[in-house]
Amino acid sequence: MVFQPEDPGFADRVRRSFGLQTVMVTIGAELRTVNPGSVEIVLPFRADLCQQHGFLHAGIVATLVDSACGYAALTLMSAEAAVLTVEFKANFLAPAKGREFIARGRVVRPGKRISVCTGEVLAFSDGGEKTICLMQATMASLTDHDGLKD
Amino acid sequence: MVFQPEDPGFADRVRRSFGLQTVMVTIGAELRTVNPGSVEIVLPFRADLCQQHGFLHAGIVATLVDSACGYAALTLMSAEAAVLTVEFKANFLAPAKGREFIARGRVVRPGKRISVCTGEVLAFSDGGEKTICLMQATMASLTDHDGLKD
Amino acid sequence: MVFQPEDPGFADRVRRSFGLQTVMVTIGAELRTVNPGSVEIVLPFRADLCQQHGFLHAGIVATLVDSACGYAALTLMSAEAAVLTVEFKANFLAPAKGREFIARGRVVRPGKRISVCTGEVLAFSDGGEKTICLMQATMASLTDHDGLKD
Amino acid sequence: MVFQPEDPGFADRVRRSFGLQTVMVTIGAELRTVNPGSVEIVLPFRADLCQQHGFLHAGIVATLVDSACGYAALTLMSAEAAVLTVEFKANFLAPAKGREFIARGRVVRPGKRISVCTGEVLAFSDGGEKTICLMQATMASLTDHDGLKD
Repeated sequence: MVFQPEDPGFADRVRRSFGLQTVMVTIGAELRTVNPGSVEIVLPFRADLCQQHGFLHAGIVATLVDSACGYAALTLMSAEAAVLTVEFKANFLAPAKGREFIARGRVVRPGKRISVCTGEVLAFSDGGEKTICLMQATMASLTDHDGLKD
Repeated sequence: MVFQPEDPGFADRVRRSFGLQTVMVTIGAELRTVNPGSVEIVLPFRADLCQQHGFLHAGIVATLVDSACGYAALTLMSAEAAVLTVEFKANFLAPAKGREFIARGRVVRPGKRISVCTGEVLAFSDGGEKTICLMQATMASLTDHDGLKD
Repeated sequence: MVFQPEDPGFADRVRRSFGLQTVMVTIGAELRTVNPGSVEIVLPFRADLCQQHGFLHAGIVATLVDSACGYAALTLMSAEAAVLTVEFKANFLAPAKGREFIARGRVVRPGKRISVCTGEVLAFSDGGEKTICLMQATMASLTDHDGLKD
Repeated sequence: MVFQPEDPGFADRVRRSFGLQTVMVTIGAELRTVNPGSVEIVLPFRADLCQQHGFLHAGIVATLVDSACGYAALTLMSAEAAVLTVEFKANFLAPAKGREFIARGRVVRPGKRISVCTGEVLAFSDGGEKTICLMQATMASLTDHDGLKD
């Protein structure tokens, strides 16, 4: 799908917002590409973000791809809009092992109020790349920022 | 529902496994209660785990309640079993604002191979408590630990 | 949770709308209780609604509990609002065997635009009752009926 | 993805199983293509399968794509295996209006016990085609048919 962003400054807007996500600094994730309707976030493996078997915790995997999906939706929203996650669903296809992880989010159906996105997380190791997570998510666009107050 | 754990040492087993989840130390979460089929995890608010509006990131909220659900399932598994998240789905009911967050996971249907759990996250602030997240999750029990190798 | 419906005529409104769901006549489902924020729908087993093993098809189970959740949300909406399913997620806990099935939907968080509901389906047989399905759903309230046009 | 089915007779096996799904006859759905790891099911619009606004009921849409996903998973299973839906999640992108609907299911990660599938439903009308539903589903393979007994 090819999308025409309403706001030509979408990429700067997304990068500024990502810069405000303190959790991304804490876990060491970086915003890679920002295109109309799609976003990539990269995370090098870190031993202090793991579950009991030494794999990246499923919640950290979800953190990456939730942000990738949310920002993919934000690229197509108006300059005034804020994005909030309504819900997401993630399947974990394989243990999150690897040297580096890339989360990709993309818009499937943009909407004035609600956007539907899909995303995945790839793990890169010496053995190659592997899809370890699949997400389907619903993002809300808040233009009056009402939903942020309460 | 009242569950009879197969392994009388279930609570110690869960606490030991939780102690191996390095991400919990990193984000400052603690295991509170461990009962047959239910688990609670607590996280004090931290400004370095937030999204762009200063609320706890949805992925961190999911990290808490995913672990609560997974460990709730593990309380009812055999002493040799490992637990892995097959999938989860989370609705975010309100922005994750508050002084402290409690994630609760409980087993709805225990199974030899697959357990179904529900969970929620409560936010505590001066204004009282509020449910901010609802999860429905599928957990796998791996007795041969095959799924952990690849 | 106790809810105060905005529209005192909520029950009649839900019953009228249910009467327009032609699929409910086709499958033989009936609306049982309609309370503020919760609804029950009943379906006697029918051999012509089954999957390959003779159990009620998961999609028919979902049809029941989706309507129960949607109408639960509608009980709390204004008299002019239409309800549409944004998304749902269902776990199937056991094969849908039984003489009769009851789907229950309830609102967890009502909202002006979006309501979050949970639901379940119980199967009744000679051996007693059993929860066979668990749903978590997001319902939209459309007051301008825009979403219905396109 | 290109899959190599374990059972060369996979297509006949799926067609036989689909023939046992009585609900498909009841709603008028037909199995179209059966390929390794993917399946298509077609349903002409019927006014007796609708919700209150005259669109196909979300549960019927889910019925189609659940079967498409389940059979996609079954194409890659052994000849003795039965397939059961563990869970599915569906986003409804637009009202289910149209003359004909095609549900497509495909395997994203095949597994000995658990397969992950994605699916979608397209609506065809005079105005063209439109994706109205997106599914992410988990299917179980039961080789001992234990899960079918109780």
